[in-house]
Amino acid sequence: MEQITSLQNKRVKEWCSLHQKKYRDQTGRFLVEGEHLIKEALTAGLLEELITDTETPFDFRKVTLVTPQIMAKISKNVSAVHLIGVCRKMEETAERRNRFILLDGIQDPGNLGTLIRTAVSFGFDAVYCSEDTCDLFNEKAVRSTQGALFHIPVMRRNLKDLIPLLQKEGFAVISTSLEESHTPSQIAVTDQMAFVFGNEGQGVRKEIQAMSDDRLRIEITGFESLNVAVAGGIVMYLYRGRETE
Amino acid sequence: MEQITSLQNKRVKEWCSLHQKKYRDQTGRFLVEGEHLIKEALTAGLLEELITDTETPFDFRKVTLVTPQIMAKISKNVSAVHLIGVCRKMEETAERRNRFILLDGIQDPGNLGTLIRTAVSFGFDAVYCSEDTCDLFNEKAVRSTQGALFHIPVMRRNLKDLIPLLQKEGFAVISTSLEESHTPSQIAVTDQMAFVFGNEGQGVRKEIQAMSDDRLRIEITGFESLNVAVAGGIVMYLYRGRETE
Repeated sequence: MEQITSLQNKRVKEWCSLHQKKYRDQTGRFLVEGEHLIKEALTAGLLEELITDTETPFDFRKVTLVTPQIMAKISKNVSAVHLIGVCRKMEETAERRNRFILLDGIQDPGNLGTLIRTAVSFGFDAVYCSEDTCDLFNEKAVRSTQGALFHIPVMRRNLKDLIPLLQKEGFAVISTSLEESHTPSQIAVTDQMAFVFGNEGQGVRKEIQAMSDDRLRIEITGFESLNVAVAGGIVMYLYRGRETE
Repeated sequence: MEQITSLQNKRVKEWCSLHQKKYRDQTGRFLVEGEHLIKEALTAGLLEELITDTETPFDFRKVTLVTPQIMAKISKNVSAVHLIGVCRKMEETAERRNRFILLDGIQDPGNLGTLIRTAVSFGFDAVYCSEDTCDLFNEKAVRSTQGALFHIPVMRRNLKDLIPLLQKEGFAVISTSLEESHTPSQIAVTDQMAFVFGNEGQGVRKEIQAMSDDRLRIEITGFESLNVAVAGGIVMYLYRGRETE
């Protein structure tokens, strides 16, 4: 097992740089903390390296032992973390192409992570994020996915370019919207569907709504709007995908 | 308009003490930050006092002008806040008694706030929190409600005492659970229903499940579990209450 004791070590600096989106994008790598997420990465074959200051419960080929000081430097957590994984991003291809979600400018990492977790729960095949959606590999977003990001491809695309391609392929693209929209009972379940969820404050952009095949609204009883992750959960439940083989 | 310039002023200390649950419980008062929440409190008649270091867009009888230093001391926000409201908790009575949610040990303030916001959206009449559910008047929980806490009574109760009372009143008490449970299509919508949502890690306590009239499970397609606020959203949508008059 390799050991590193110096805070100035080049590899420590490399790990720390993964807190910045720029370096995550360059390297295709990101960090996860804690046993649950690491186990998910390992199972999905996306774990590259384990860093610990004690010992690891996982039998893994590449483990580096570091000091608690180095651990504290790499970790984003306020309390002590004893296990950090360097992970590879999942490949950007969806094997099944029946159910997609498209995220148009989601800003809160917690909402993004929860939407991805829910997409996996309801058998969706891929998540497409607009260029201005917040970064998935941010520590809070990763945590909110509860490991689901190792089970579904999440891709960044210009949605205005993507939507016509999906429609050509046979997808019904449905934007969630409060205006001139239909309720779930008015929009039939079909084989290929893509649902667009919008920014927390602004909703789905007008241009994206206009490009969509239909607009869907969740009927609310009170005056209050729904959190986007809750609205997304209801839509994904109602239009859930088939069981994974 | 009253003015306070000293950080040592007794009232500044009183306001700061409202960051602690103990004093919120003692006084029945809590703080909210930002225009949206204050507007909601004002509309609901639950605003007691406004504190600002600039001016207020609201025409309100009791405004205190303070220095930016005092504002920074009272605020929980990292960026500058110019408007803080001292609010009164809503009265602990539900006028309509058709749809309740019961929260058994919810730990995350964001989840708690989102569940309350969703309850208002779907016409629920009250929220009951177990004694070990996190505090609603915590800043993050308040923010996550988006003001909904001024529109629905939220009460703290021993759920084991409460459930038999609700059942006697005619309520069907339904616990969410993965084990020995029914799907939504198997549980009929009735006039009086109370749904129990459980702790993020442990779910609804076994004793509470055993006291319930039925157990409800949201069918998932993947292996992944749902975030409790998302599961709650789906259940409250499917069993939503009537329009408020």
